[in-house]
Amino acid sequence: MLQVKTPEEVLALIKKEFTPLSDCTELVPFTGALGRVLAEDIAAEEYVPDFDRSTVDGYACRASDTFGCSDAIPAILNLAGEVRMGSAAGIKLPRDSCVYVPTGGAIPEGADCAVMLEYTEDYGDGTIGIMKPGAPGMNLIYRGDDVFPGKVVLKAGRLLTPQDIGALAAIGRMQVPVQRKLRVAVISTGDELVPPEQDPGPGQVRDVNSPLLCALLEDFGAEPVHFGIVVDDKDLLREKMEAAVRECDAVILSGGSSVGVKDAACQIIESMGTLLLHGIAIKPGKPTIMGKAGNKPLVGLPGHPVAAFFVAKLFVLPLLARLEGRELHRYPARARMTESLNANHGRMQVNACRLISSDTGLTAVPVRSKSGLITQLAGADGYLIIERDREGLDKGAEVEVCLD
Amino acid sequence: MLQVKTPEEVLALIKKEFTPLSDCTELVPFTGALGRVLAEDIAAEEYVPDFDRSTVDGYACRASDTFGCSDAIPAILNLAGEVRMGSAAGIKLPRDSCVYVPTGGAIPEGADCAVMLEYTEDYGDGTIGIMKPGAPGMNLIYRGDDVFPGKVVLKAGRLLTPQDIGALAAIGRMQVPVQRKLRVAVISTGDELVPPEQDPGPGQVRDVNSPLLCALLEDFGAEPVHFGIVVDDKDLLREKMEAAVRECDAVILSGGSSVGVKDAACQIIESMGTLLLHGIAIKPGKPTIMGKAGNKPLVGLPGHPVAAFFVAKLFVLPLLARLEGRELHRYPARARMTESLNANHGRMQVNACRLISSDTGLTAVPVRSKSGLITQLAGADGYLIIERDREGLDKGAEVEVCLD
Repeated sequence: MLQVKTPEEVLALIKKEFTPLSDCTELVPFTGALGRVLAEDIAAEEYVPDFDRSTVDGYACRASDTFGCSDAIPAILNLAGEVRMGSAAGIKLPRDSCVYVPTGGAIPEGADCAVMLEYTEDYGDGTIGIMKPGAPGMNLIYRGDDVFPGKVVLKAGRLLTPQDIGALAAIGRMQVPVQRKLRVAVISTGDELVPPEQDPGPGQVRDVNSPLLCALLEDFGAEPVHFGIVVDDKDLLREKMEAAVRECDAVILSGGSSVGVKDAACQIIESMGTLLLHGIAIKPGKPTIMGKAGNKPLVGLPGHPVAAFFVAKLFVLPLLARLEGRELHRYPARARMTESLNANHGRMQVNACRLISSDTGLTAVPVRSKSGLITQLAGADGYLIIERDREGLDKGAEVEVCLD
Repeated sequence: MLQVKTPEEVLALIKKEFTPLSDCTELVPFTGALGRVLAEDIAAEEYVPDFDRSTVDGYACRASDTFGCSDAIPAILNLAGEVRMGSAAGIKLPRDSCVYVPTGGAIPEGADCAVMLEYTEDYGDGTIGIMKPGAPGMNLIYRGDDVFPGKVVLKAGRLLTPQDIGALAAIGRMQVPVQRKLRVAVISTGDELVPPEQDPGPGQVRDVNSPLLCALLEDFGAEPVHFGIVVDDKDLLREKMEAAVRECDAVILSGGSSVGVKDAACQIIESMGTLLLHGIAIKPGKPTIMGKAGNKPLVGLPGHPVAAFFVAKLFVLPLLARLEGRELHRYPARARMTESLNANHGRMQVNACRLISSDTGLTAVPVRSKSGLITQLAGADGYLIIERDREGLDKGAEVEVCLD
């Protein structure tokens, strides 16, 4: 008999039992790579910039020709030309000379600094007065300062952000190896469930978990595959789960909170592979099961939407990230409790909250409602985690609010 | 002549000069509404649940029939039937009786609580022993406890999250009024720019800002419309901007860091509408311009990708949110500086950073590189803001890291 595991044990179990998929890479155009998981390190193959550039509008010159100059005693340099944007400098700088160069323009051979326009004066006779001494390297970006061949710009496992797309453009990387999107089956069980578009009859409720979990998977960057609602029937459930495991990389079952169905799900998982977990010491979310068929996870979430949501956030998404080799970064916000929140179960407790910004910082308002009510989640901004050994959160306490 | 404005002044200007678009709503299926901005408050039109439900597996009964019972002296109740999931209770509870009810099952008329299975014993003779007294309402969710007709579940302006999709399913709201996606024109200017797919010649660099800004807009939920690269030519630029403003809700120009092009952009904006801003007291990002043609914003960003990126994050996205009536929530993470970071410009300074999780909390590693280098951004996790009146950040200082 499997024992209830702590959240830490469950995360360790995930790491131990599942490995990143090996056949999971596809090439996509870099403009379509936003929000995808990088499958390999990306190294530059060229220099960026490919030439020495000025970071200012001004005059490129030899610093040594300007040493000792000042407002009172400018260095007088011959104007040897002008660099145009998008062109080679096209000149080798003679001694005691300078060339005009715009921001981003190429620095001519022989020059080792650029003096900003405001520290210069054009005397109109082919000479330029320099009022502020240059120093070698001043206001320059050298060839390869940004990147050079072999420099790793982005690491495998990173979820690509807009700025990463910019970096890929900068190095001319037009095709990017990313993890293909995981296909994740979503199955709801329960005799009481009707599809959301159907009016519930007596004793019936709409299936919330299917659209909730599909949206969560979509948001995560996976491809949800909805397998519909299965009534509490072991044979039908087995059939559905077998089809799901054939077609998908992972299967998420929810509902079946009745003892019979949970037992059936456990038996089906055992017959398909290995049952790894039966119960997590978390509230809500305890009746969670997890197993695997090969390297494919099979998860049974509680039927209560709130519980299913928290367990999916806290354990299913890290599990999928593990399959993808994705680095999952989650940074909480810091806020003060507007009121106290009790907890004392010997279990980690998760509670939705709203966040309110004020002049004195962020405050967290716990959302109070009976277990399983979906409106606890609608409109919530994040969630609070109260560790097992903590007897609730006091009013005014500083807390970390999980945002994703 | 317009003065350089502080960041706060720019945000106030945006609020004053632009109003939410009025013709901007479309109906989408709720399953496609993830990441869209809700255009109207959503109120429930029905009760959820539509019947009184048990939150446990156990026996529904009258609490008063169990008062005073205990392990030693159970209350003996007649088993009057069983409620099946997904069906009406179909029974009116007689006196001194109970019915079996599964979690989520309907509570029969007359019952006012549910006693958990583990506090009961089935004597096998048609009676059930209750070892723990009930109390009215115990383990019940009443009809409409979650939502009831008229209850606002989600407010206009909210970016819809997975849990909101679940809430829409729960109340049977199959079509959702959302803001249509803003169409935002992206134009890059500069004689030195070549499209990313082209190898740069002497003095040329790849256009980073177009894909960077398009990705940022996509990430925000807008629809970027790429108008390509325009060389530094006032007539061509005017033509492009006029086409862009006809087709789109907003125009973002970047580059043209040369004085001539900036002046041209200002003149074009003035001829098309009103120039509102010329310079923001922020580093990097000072040479930013903003204007409007009617209610359509026209923004000129700096050419340096890093500067363009920060200005777009800090000002352009809030501007677009204003047009959508979107509530823009941005919650920073708290971290400790791993090293000091200087600042002393009389300008707000923005600096990319990496975040590292450790046992003692999150640490922020400032990314140091010359201005305008895109690799400063690639791989960064967030950015630090150093206020104008602050002389940098000390090593070990606790700072807020902006994540989005």
